Amino acid sequence: MTRIEKAYTALLDRLAEIHALNNALGLLSWDQETLMPPKGVESRALSRQVLSGLAHDRITAPELGDLLDALSSADLDAPREAVVRECRRDRDRAVKVPRDLVTEIARVTALSQQAWAAAREADDYPAFAPRLAQVIDLRRRQAEALGYEGEPYNALLDEYEPGTRVEDLEPVFDGLRNHLIFLVAEISGKPQPGAAPMTNDFPVDAQERFCRRLLVDMGFDFEAGRLDRSAHPFTSEMGPRDVRLTTNYDPADLGRSVYSTIHEGGHGLYEQGLPTADAGTPLGEAVSLGIHESQSRLWENMIARGRPFMDYALPLLRDVFPGRFDALDGDDLYRSANIVRPSLIRIEADEVTYNLHIILRMELERAVISGDLQVDDLPGAWNDGMLKYLGLTPPTDREGVLQDIHWSFGLFGYFPTYTLGNLYAAQFFDAARTAIPDLDARTAAGDFAPLLDWLRGNIHRHGRLHAPGELCRMATGRDLDAGALTTYLDRKFGGLYGLERGDDRV
Amino acid sequence: MTRIEKAYTALLDRLAEIHALNNALGLLSWDQETLMPPKGVESRALSRQVLSGLAHDRITAPELGDLLDALSSADLDAPREAVVRECRRDRDRAVKVPRDLVTEIARVTALSQQAWAAAREADDYPAFAPRLAQVIDLRRRQAEALGYEGEPYNALLDEYEPGTRVEDLEPVFDGLRNHLIFLVAEISGKPQPGAAPMTNDFPVDAQERFCRRLLVDMGFDFEAGRLDRSAHPFTSEMGPRDVRLTTNYDPADLGRSVYSTIHEGGHGLYEQGLPTADAGTPLGEAVSLGIHESQSRLWENMIARGRPFMDYALPLLRDVFPGRFDALDGDDLYRSANIVRPSLIRIEADEVTYNLHIILRMELERAVISGDLQVDDLPGAWNDGMLKYLGLTPPTDREGVLQDIHWSFGLFGYFPTYTLGNLYAAQFFDAARTAIPDLDARTAAGDFAPLLDWLRGNIHRHGRLHAPGELCRMATGRDLDAGALTTYLDRKFGGLYGLERGDDRV
Repeated sequence: MTRIEKAYTALLDRLAEIHALNNALGLLSWDQETLMPPKGVESRALSRQVLSGLAHDRITAPELGDLLDALSSADLDAPREAVVRECRRDRDRAVKVPRDLVTEIARVTALSQQAWAAAREADDYPAFAPRLAQVIDLRRRQAEALGYEGEPYNALLDEYEPGTRVEDLEPVFDGLRNHLIFLVAEISGKPQPGAAPMTNDFPVDAQERFCRRLLVDMGFDFEAGRLDRSAHPFTSEMGPRDVRLTTNYDPADLGRSVYSTIHEGGHGLYEQGLPTADAGTPLGEAVSLGIHESQSRLWENMIARGRPFMDYALPLLRDVFPGRFDALDGDDLYRSANIVRPSLIRIEADEVTYNLHIILRMELERAVISGDLQVDDLPGAWNDGMLKYLGLTPPTDREGVLQDIHWSFGLFGYFPTYTLGNLYAAQFFDAARTAIPDLDARTAAGDFAPLLDWLRGNIHRHGRLHAPGELCRMATGRDLDAGALTTYLDRKFGGLYGLERGDDRV
Repeated sequence: MTRIEKAYTALLDRLAEIHALNNALGLLSWDQETLMPPKGVESRALSRQVLSGLAHDRITAPELGDLLDALSSADLDAPREAVVRECRRDRDRAVKVPRDLVTEIARVTALSQQAWAAAREADDYPAFAPRLAQVIDLRRRQAEALGYEGEPYNALLDEYEPGTRVEDLEPVFDGLRNHLIFLVAEISGKPQPGAAPMTNDFPVDAQERFCRRLLVDMGFDFEAGRLDRSAHPFTSEMGPRDVRLTTNYDPADLGRSVYSTIHEGGHGLYEQGLPTADAGTPLGEAVSLGIHESQSRLWENMIARGRPFMDYALPLLRDVFPGRFDALDGDDLYRSANIVRPSLIRIEADEVTYNLHIILRMELERAVISGDLQVDDLPGAWNDGMLKYLGLTPPTDREGVLQDIHWSFGLFGYFPTYTLGNLYAAQFFDAARTAIPDLDARTAAGDFAPLLDWLRGNIHRHGRLHAPGELCRMATGRDLDAGALTTYLDRKFGGLYGLERGDDRV
């Protein structure tokens, strides 16, 4: 073995150890959200704190730095060069943050999740505010330690969407916001296309059976994953072949479990599509949260809220819920899954209004992290923003500022990746439709293999080999812009609501 | 703070870190048995290997040795002295075993569990044998590294039952075995007391409801624990207030879930009764597996298979399973829960034959660890032993040598603690009856608080403050012997089967 071969093998050994710790941390966190008895929280927080510290020690170890230095100047093939480059990135970020701050964030966020859940339950923002202030203070200190150009928020955003600054997002998001406000206004002048058939009295066990069937048809491998329940649906992986989705079931709302399951299924397919042989290295990891979200959104919205999907879903629905869908046809389902109406809760929002929820959150996050907005003033600022963008005022904080779990986790800078995901999804969907001329017919027949193959080949299999922007160019032939999404929304909802811009099939 | 105070605080900090790692390991293992998708096994094995290594590094750290040295010569109060003594014991064992061996055992046993499950499913011992040989080899190497007096088995037994040697157990176990063989023979000459009412068609969800109710009545805190399902019932804790029981449900056998739940409930109550303030130190840990098993056996057998319990259980059974128990009275239940009949499967064995299963396993383990018996010869030796002690020959290895999960975990030296538990349980039960004169009436009324208080005060709250033998003397006024158990069995089953030694109430 050459000196370089030896160094690369030593690097892989070190990465495997870090990966093992991160997988254990993944399980500690997943279990806390799904199963852990409430009194276990203090002890769990300690376990997460200790393991985070150990993972931090390993990524910041001087020996790892020496290996990366030795390999940086070596003549490596492209995949290995990417492994070294991305490890360097991860390590450079990690060494800037003091160990105490890392473990304190792990401990405090494990505790604040519980505080958030209790405060939301009780609709008591003041009970959560001190914890939130503590989390924000820790994240601000982290941003200062990381360093940034422009505003501190960039240091946090970079964690989720490598290399992206808020200044780059602003023009795209501004254009999108203006377009959406106009589109929402146009739609609100039109009559709604009828009541939703997916509400009232859908037994939870039948819902679960239906959701599992959808995942199997999409290509999710249950031998390498699970579907469970949690208050807030999410996807988590604790190893390359252990990908766990959660959803929740409301007997009064079939759409809730169905669309959250498909959404998380899109995330899960990305995780299951990452190359197993590269597990534990950056090549076996998702490239960014924006790209991750593009996978969930593409399945949830472009596929499962599209007209062809309804031809696949309708016979299944009739089978699992006897008598409930006999009087409906595919057009009815399509309309009911695409009602646009400004609403209070982000995760229940339609495709058109959804991004306005995100744009509001990003504004608030930037203000809170920069110190322009105080924690005590967040509920008021939230409500002002809701009124401005969606014309609504939340009657309670539970339906307002307390609705999302993210901030209790310390996830500031995370929300923008949701809108990035929608933008990427529309652009990827265009490219996939071009590559698969009969995509609609395949979808209508429940044959999702060609789409999954395209996603695997163009996105999943690359891991972190290319930067998100480069991946987008390779898969779609152009840089990311808002064009694909606004065109998609105009056509689809123009058709559904009889707007002049519309076209009734997408 | 004095120098000694500082050293003690530093010791507690180090113990907290080890505890956090062990809690994470506990979750990794629990999840593997209950939820993990099958393809996750390789990655899980790696996580367990890495965390085991990190825990080992911490317990063997020279700085911990220095702290213990400094504290050993200090004038400490009894609890702190016990903490130092027990840490010293744990560390002395750990430093003797090379790190590579520790992590290799963690990795191999994580994989061999899956191999065992597949082999049992397929009734294919030869498929498991190479893995088992690997596990045995690793455990033998561990025994050699630990050192021992007498035979290598003692090094392994000492892990589960501190300070106990097989030479000490032999006379007690021999006496018990001879007594039991004679008692089984006497019983087999008598007619059986009628068919069991707990078989056939008990819906699983109703069984689960009943089991949860039993646990609540026993005093199990579901805010600090869970009940889930697994192939092999077990209890696991991943923190002082996160105690998880598992059971499984067979619609054709209510007794199976009920008695395994009560058994695991006994373990769980011990874990929940350990002093939370001392969590992470030896004072917050169970003292030995024999004492642990005494808690599960006392609840399962002395309480829940006793006549008074049936007066509590019957109305509940009638409530949860309408119509199924109308024609039965407490005596019928009592007889049906106490049928003595030699059988193939240990976990389904009655109180009389159970210990013969254990005595057979201990003999085989000693022979296999010493090298007198080869892995390929285990199935034959198993069947010979079953014929000798119970007069039965397993028709398949699945009902023979493959039935227990323990060896796949590497748990050699563990089985004897089950019989030790039965011996302790009988002696503790005697003492509790003396201390609580109306114990039978309380049990019949479903008021288990006096018993739980007695167990908490005499056993649980002490953690590892006293050695198991000392704890037994303190709680019962005498050393452990077989007298309490043989007297209990003679009276109870003598009464049930009309033997001359009997008495019809215990």
